[in-house]
Amino acid sequence: MKTWQGRIGTPAHPLFEAFTSSIEQDRRLAPYDVLVSQAHARALAAAGIIAADSGDQLVAALDEIGAEIRDGRFTWRDDLEDVHTHVESRLREKLGDLAGALHAGRSRNDQIAADLRLYVKDTIRATLQALLDLQSALLDLARRYQDAVMPGYTHLQQAQPLLIAQPLLAHAAMLGRDWERFRAAYARADHSPLGSGALAGSTFPLDRELLAQLCGFSGVIGNSLDAVSDRDFLVETVFNAGLGMTHLSRLAEDIVLWSSAEFGFLELPDAFASGSSMLPQKKNPDVAELIRGKAALVLGDVSAALALVKAIPLGYNRDLQEDKTPLYHATDTLLASLRVLTAMVPDLRFDTERTAQAVSSYALATDLADHLVQHGVPFRQAHAVVGQLVARCLTDGRALTELDAGELRAASPHFDTIPELSAAASIRRKRTTGSTHPDEVKRQLRNADDELRSRRIALEAMR
Amino acid sequence: MKTWQGRIGTPAHPLFEAFTSSIEQDRRLAPYDVLVSQAHARALAAAGIIAADSGDQLVAALDEIGAEIRDGRFTWRDDLEDVHTHVESRLREKLGDLAGALHAGRSRNDQIAADLRLYVKDTIRATLQALLDLQSALLDLARRYQDAVMPGYTHLQQAQPLLIAQPLLAHAAMLGRDWERFRAAYARADHSPLGSGALAGSTFPLDRELLAQLCGFSGVIGNSLDAVSDRDFLVETVFNAGLGMTHLSRLAEDIVLWSSAEFGFLELPDAFASGSSMLPQKKNPDVAELIRGKAALVLGDVSAALALVKAIPLGYNRDLQEDKTPLYHATDTLLASLRVLTAMVPDLRFDTERTAQAVSSYALATDLADHLVQHGVPFRQAHAVVGQLVARCLTDGRALTELDAGELRAASPHFDTIPELSAAASIRRKRTTGSTHPDEVKRQLRNADDELRSRRIALEAMR
Amino acid sequence: MKTWQGRIGTPAHPLFEAFTSSIEQDRRLAPYDVLVSQAHARALAAAGIIAADSGDQLVAALDEIGAEIRDGRFTWRDDLEDVHTHVESRLREKLGDLAGALHAGRSRNDQIAADLRLYVKDTIRATLQALLDLQSALLDLARRYQDAVMPGYTHLQQAQPLLIAQPLLAHAAMLGRDWERFRAAYARADHSPLGSGALAGSTFPLDRELLAQLCGFSGVIGNSLDAVSDRDFLVETVFNAGLGMTHLSRLAEDIVLWSSAEFGFLELPDAFASGSSMLPQKKNPDVAELIRGKAALVLGDVSAALALVKAIPLGYNRDLQEDKTPLYHATDTLLASLRVLTAMVPDLRFDTERTAQAVSSYALATDLADHLVQHGVPFRQAHAVVGQLVARCLTDGRALTELDAGELRAASPHFDTIPELSAAASIRRKRTTGSTHPDEVKRQLRNADDELRSRRIALEAMR
Amino acid sequence: MKTWQGRIGTPAHPLFEAFTSSIEQDRRLAPYDVLVSQAHARALAAAGIIAADSGDQLVAALDEIGAEIRDGRFTWRDDLEDVHTHVESRLREKLGDLAGALHAGRSRNDQIAADLRLYVKDTIRATLQALLDLQSALLDLARRYQDAVMPGYTHLQQAQPLLIAQPLLAHAAMLGRDWERFRAAYARADHSPLGSGALAGSTFPLDRELLAQLCGFSGVIGNSLDAVSDRDFLVETVFNAGLGMTHLSRLAEDIVLWSSAEFGFLELPDAFASGSSMLPQKKNPDVAELIRGKAALVLGDVSAALALVKAIPLGYNRDLQEDKTPLYHATDTLLASLRVLTAMVPDLRFDTERTAQAVSSYALATDLADHLVQHGVPFRQAHAVVGQLVARCLTDGRALTELDAGELRAASPHFDTIPELSAAASIRRKRTTGSTHPDEVKRQLRNADDELRSRRIALEAMR
Repeated sequence: MKTWQGRIGTPAHPLFEAFTSSIEQDRRLAPYDVLVSQAHARALAAAGIIAADSGDQLVAALDEIGAEIRDGRFTWRDDLEDVHTHVESRLREKLGDLAGALHAGRSRNDQIAADLRLYVKDTIRATLQALLDLQSALLDLARRYQDAVMPGYTHLQQAQPLLIAQPLLAHAAMLGRDWERFRAAYARADHSPLGSGALAGSTFPLDRELLAQLCGFSGVIGNSLDAVSDRDFLVETVFNAGLGMTHLSRLAEDIVLWSSAEFGFLELPDAFASGSSMLPQKKNPDVAELIRGKAALVLGDVSAALALVKAIPLGYNRDLQEDKTPLYHATDTLLASLRVLTAMVPDLRFDTERTAQAVSSYALATDLADHLVQHGVPFRQAHAVVGQLVARCLTDGRALTELDAGELRAASPHFDTIPELSAAASIRRKRTTGSTHPDEVKRQLRNADDELRSRRIALEAMR
Repeated sequence: MKTWQGRIGTPAHPLFEAFTSSIEQDRRLAPYDVLVSQAHARALAAAGIIAADSGDQLVAALDEIGAEIRDGRFTWRDDLEDVHTHVESRLREKLGDLAGALHAGRSRNDQIAADLRLYVKDTIRATLQALLDLQSALLDLARRYQDAVMPGYTHLQQAQPLLIAQPLLAHAAMLGRDWERFRAAYARADHSPLGSGALAGSTFPLDRELLAQLCGFSGVIGNSLDAVSDRDFLVETVFNAGLGMTHLSRLAEDIVLWSSAEFGFLELPDAFASGSSMLPQKKNPDVAELIRGKAALVLGDVSAALALVKAIPLGYNRDLQEDKTPLYHATDTLLASLRVLTAMVPDLRFDTERTAQAVSSYALATDLADHLVQHGVPFRQAHAVVGQLVARCLTDGRALTELDAGELRAASPHFDTIPELSAAASIRRKRTTGSTHPDEVKRQLRNADDELRSRRIALEAMR
Repeated sequence: MKTWQGRIGTPAHPLFEAFTSSIEQDRRLAPYDVLVSQAHARALAAAGIIAADSGDQLVAALDEIGAEIRDGRFTWRDDLEDVHTHVESRLREKLGDLAGALHAGRSRNDQIAADLRLYVKDTIRATLQALLDLQSALLDLARRYQDAVMPGYTHLQQAQPLLIAQPLLAHAAMLGRDWERFRAAYARADHSPLGSGALAGSTFPLDRELLAQLCGFSGVIGNSLDAVSDRDFLVETVFNAGLGMTHLSRLAEDIVLWSSAEFGFLELPDAFASGSSMLPQKKNPDVAELIRGKAALVLGDVSAALALVKAIPLGYNRDLQEDKTPLYHATDTLLASLRVLTAMVPDLRFDTERTAQAVSSYALATDLADHLVQHGVPFRQAHAVVGQLVARCLTDGRALTELDAGELRAASPHFDTIPELSAAASIRRKRTTGSTHPDEVKRQLRNADDELRSRRIALEAMR
Repeated sequence: MKTWQGRIGTPAHPLFEAFTSSIEQDRRLAPYDVLVSQAHARALAAAGIIAADSGDQLVAALDEIGAEIRDGRFTWRDDLEDVHTHVESRLREKLGDLAGALHAGRSRNDQIAADLRLYVKDTIRATLQALLDLQSALLDLARRYQDAVMPGYTHLQQAQPLLIAQPLLAHAAMLGRDWERFRAAYARADHSPLGSGALAGSTFPLDRELLAQLCGFSGVIGNSLDAVSDRDFLVETVFNAGLGMTHLSRLAEDIVLWSSAEFGFLELPDAFASGSSMLPQKKNPDVAELIRGKAALVLGDVSAALALVKAIPLGYNRDLQEDKTPLYHATDTLLASLRVLTAMVPDLRFDTERTAQAVSSYALATDLADHLVQHGVPFRQAHAVVGQLVARCLTDGRALTELDAGELRAASPHFDTIPELSAAASIRRKRTTGSTHPDEVKRQLRNADDELRSRRIALEAMR
């Protein structure tokens, strides 16, 4: 059965059926399609287009269908092209001709747009939850390592020492921005296209506010043509997933580096690492590598979603059927990646002895320069003095900490006092808000906890 | 002069200099770099690291440099690798050693992050303005064509008649969403990284709130490592430009179609069309075609920005130097496209006689079906009846409007009354909020005007 | 069972198992994995590492496993992470400890690289066949319409008349380039990584030429590390599919336009078009729209494949597990699109009366200008003369063919003879190789047929 | 002056002029446009459309213009929209009306396609040269380090020892594939569109073979519409540059890792490294980081080029004007990256003492397992035995080499003889073609040299 075979007599070519079928992609939308149909039944009854008890019958039968779908008892058939046809066909089995009455005043164009928006809303809520969970795990890990020291890097070269908590807090901060972006996208998805018909609006006096309210939308889209054409909410969600995966990919990159033998900072939990069939000693950072790889694929989803929407003139075009592929892949991947990291992060173990020893004395050079500046030497001059000391040490193969007081004073009279040259001292010397100073790290943790709490409350309110 | 040649004796290889120079890309950042440096001078003085009058001298000299840049009197040199070096070098010419004092407690890492954020803020403000201007032009055009009729399309097949205003309002609505997305991105860009040093924070007691305030930021970034590593604000801006260009590309697609001989709906203004060297009769929709092409390039910018950020571990990495290329290209392109359309749109002329005649009688088939439903026929049955009537007309080569009362009544007794079959009547029959009914179009226009007004006020407040 | 649990005692976390499992993606590779394992068994026997009859037993048991896979009798289990483990586990059920002997001297790294290359080779051959089939269908259609006239477009504006065969031949020519690119990629994929072990080569004296020959590879890869790291053959195949889809998208764009009511050039076969649930009169170009949409997704696959490979240092990294997603999607999509078009193209019907009438008289302006040039008027001057004639006709609302001899002669004395102003005459006036002149179209068809024939022979030789 | 203002009276809007001007992008094409025009002048004369001496005059004047362009004496004007207009305008200054005669029988559509193809051919030749030069530098470096040992990695975990030459040869092999792909693309670009006019062919009897030959093309494109629409050669070149940059990005990733303090394998030449303004001890791998970043941008170019071409129906569309942006950026970036690496690679210094010491004893575990297999133990069993030994060493914090003979024999009786456990011995134990065995590395070097030589000869023949 095709819903549109009023005119066309010839049966569809099997290759055409297979090529155009969207059932594989539509299945996930079935619960939303049922909800949207129930709202439509009620709106038709409210507008007097069907009798009140017809409305009730439709709603009740759709309830049953919803349960069948939920319980896996629903039969998916290859000869029914999409989710709308499946639901209508099952309804007809239950109610006969009354099923046909449901389609007055609507179109698959506004229906699919509503289904997709409801799906995106649910997916975003799940993602918001998963973001908070991973943030929470990272904050706990940071708390556990708020006293431990490690080298900080720029250009993958050691720059200055950090508390291990500092990069972990930086990773958590990225997820906080993802949270905000997803929440904003949620608000934009939360508008109803229902009642817009195929493109021009409906001939029946459907109450669009009622339709929106019954489906849990917070408002209605103001222009009927925009309502059926717009996929911004979808493209934006794919992009948010892409940027989120990019953040996880940066975290993954750090995990891969830190768990290499050469860095040796991090031990992966056995339950989250594979070995090699031929090389029994290895413990591979598979999760991190796969996240890095999957981020590449979601980047592809962003390109795909943009290229898809870019191609089409106004109004519904069948190209849009393909929009579900990047949407599902991008959001599934982000969710799965967040969840596997959330499970793994609590069991990450830093080798704090090794991270401390790894800090090169040269990473303390800035401390020497800053000392001079604090004693009145213009920065560029201080920089030059310390640069020469470093150069000498490099030539001699000495650590910077091996310079004796005489050598230092010879380089500058302002080294009559000498700052303590250790990673811990360097860290405690930091004085700005948000720095790696232990007090600042504590404050960052407190702020992050507060934010987490208020986001949990906000998310609760979105259900 | 390199600021970092304390250690390295060997002169840089010319290919290295050319390959790593960022001057071409940094020039635009010069005014922001001056502003950031002035804020830093004041913060150093406030913290007692330099004398108050040294601070004043630095600010005054930087004022002069800012003026030189503004007036095109500033000399850009190939041997100075980036914008920071240029400003410092010029400052040294003016103030000698005092120039060197300015660099205490900061790094090029927090400096460039601040410069970029200020640049992005300015660019977003300009974009918000340009979006409103094009929206305004589209609304005026819609107002001009709020009584004119055209075919509405799905699948590029005629579906139902529309008022010409309806698609124009749909295009304007897309720009409204762009406005919201850019405004949200602005808020996220509006945080200061200053005072974060290279990655760990600063040894000097710099007041980060003061630094932020002097540069016009509304807050500070909470983690020093995040402050220098984060480019979300940039990637998000590139994506917003990409989605915005996608919207313009859809508008462009409509313009190309509508101005073809076959559609013949739209005449382009002579001042915005080219002919052909060999084919003197042609009037090509160049602007629309170029926008479609440029949208493809900005899609590439989105891929580039994501792939760039994805590749790097935490901390500043030189890869990030390349982030300016997609940023500039994407935002420049969107701005230029918005502006050329804003200039062109007021002179677009629809041939309303032709658009009205173009409406196929078959686009009124739904009206027949809806009539039956309103007389109690279940929708699917009504659909089947009308489908057969359409099929008969197609076979006979007749218009749907050529069916006589007898034929209609033979198809269904509910055709004892027959709805007026015209585009205008079809449009007036629409009864839902946001539909193409003339009253609804008027309401949409009023709402859009209100929104425009309140957005102009909001934008004013962002300056 | 994990093949690598020599060291790791802890059982894997269920989220880890689910996240890292590649079974969904690996299934397709099973037949190739069996073939590769058989080759390895023979090479081990040839090198004397296992006994000759052990080799025979392994080969025979693998034959059985291959048949089980082919017939759908093979059991896929969630607790076996990849295809290699599945095959080995089944082999163990059949042969006990002898199964374990098979893995001497190889690694999953060279195994998966070989599986993928064999898969790519088969996929390319199928694609080459499908390209030829669609080319053939397009050539037949072109042959059918080699006398019919239509407008030719640049900028979607009518430029000059063409024979309908001319654009169809242009579309077929694109597919010819795809064929060449795929064939070249085939040759590059056709090298064996087998015998390279995990990365360094094998300790066992495996004959790599023999391994290659047994699997049907035409050569071996020269460096063991390159052998396991290289995915160029895969990325190149994804790109070729992307460019191929771009070509089909351009064809699709033409089909969408030509089958609109406004153009009205093309009627789609009923078996390849859908209607609308609400709008019974429509015949939507679904296949063309979906191809346009799917091309966007394959463009995303190209981004994904490049971003994936770009991210990783040398040597196998688990990121590469994800490479199968874009590969399968891109090549499946191209194959399905080629096949559905091949089925649809023979039933496309051009309305040749309408295409002929659609040619605007203005599309003959060049013929007037060329006439003047042939009578000695410099081109730019001829161009100006005709431009003014066109302008006058436009103003008067006249066709160019309505100009009378007097008007023409007044514009230029060289109009003492006047060229026949018709689409057919214009087409016959073309004199260059490859032009739309009927004789040239015939020659193009002959050449294309010859090429098709020799490609069929070349493809036969690749099996 | 616009070449097409025969019809249009209104002057172009300044925003239109700025938005549609292609001069910035066209400049590079000027020398090719001159060459193409000279060929056209000769073909017009050969066909008798202009007098022989007019042809000579045109060719001579174009020679002068070519020289002006080459010497930077040519004046570029904002009011001339593209390169064709510039050349024609200058020609008119020199020859008056004769200049106008040149444009008979051609169009900007076939002209720009020819210009671009000639540009692509030159760019590919330069790229082929640069690829050989970097390959040569990598081979020299590999030769220098063909005896030195380093750890080989999979998953960034040490897997087995390698000769340093082995990864360098793997990187060189990637460039070899790039060479082949570019050469194949060259052959496909090397066909002439000239004589195809705007889309339909030319009314003048132009000898297309002659036109092709005069411009150095090896053949002509068979269909006039395809000739002006096809940009495959350009998209393919952008992709080849993208894949090439991906290879350089992988090399860059290795350089970044190897030159970190933690790996400490590689010292960058001073002339190719920067320090930090605040951190004087640092030596940053800027070139490698920038290449990684630039590869991301070229990935964006690939998306852009595909999205651009995908959007358009057949025939020239103005979108194509934008194709030069990704082409120039992608090929410029690849060339510059190849050249800076070619200059840097000879001065890379490996710390061979450190790379040798870095090899973990665990990277020799496979050697133990292989020993057992060679003494008849089935591989999986050997794997289990060695896995337990490794686990014990890890627990005890011992190196694998610290196991004594008794412990080994207790694990398996086949350890009555014990293989030498050293990186060098492991490497010498490799026995397959292409392995890291010293003899195989030597053979690989010889093969690579031979290939390099024959490619230099092939490239010479392409000029």
